[in-house]
Amino acid sequence: MHYLICYDIADDSRRDDVATLLSGYGPRVQLSVFECEAGSKAVMAELRSKLGALIDPAEDQIRMYPLGDRSARGLLVIGARTIEERQDFWIIT
Amino acid sequence: MHYLICYDIADDSRRDDVATLLSGYGPRVQLSVFECEAGSKAVMAELRSKLGALIDPAEDQIRMYPLGDRSARGLLVIGARTIEERQDFWIIT
Repeated sequence: MHYLICYDIADDSRRDDVATLLSGYGPRVQLSVFECEAGSKAVMAELRSKLGALIDPAEDQIRMYPLGDRSARGLLVIGARTIEERQDFWIIT
Repeated sequence: MHYLICYDIADDSRRDDVATLLSGYGPRVQLSVFECEAGSKAVMAELRSKLGALIDPAEDQIRMYPLGDRSARGLLVIGARTIEERQDFWIIT
């Protein structure tokens, strides 16, 4: 299962913790955006609860969008700025 | 057609210009994330070229993910921080 995970986190150390956790699930494609892979719904549910434990719900927000094949195939990228992409996730159109 | 558009823009005024343009296509759901609606591929292609004209491709990056129904239905949101959501786009799970 492929998810786009993006976040607005008010506190620097919370933001770092979230980025560190997400980096174990897939590449960081923008400063606060990761493309994450989870082998099953249970793995994604576990990630969701770990993320919930890291943030302050009043100040922060994380959005997890399931990406189907169409989203991955139809991704449009404008601009060459990159952070860290693993080739197997990176689709250049 | 529903798109998730997220961006890393190095320059403040370029970033403001991109946000202003995107706000005409849908709600800003995070600081640098919009959920945009386009009536047709032509409209989305026009938006893409307008965005391309606003950024510096060496310093900036915009990602446009087509979102199918599954993505919209399966959206998971953690945390209550909000910016500006129109109810018809906002799905609380």
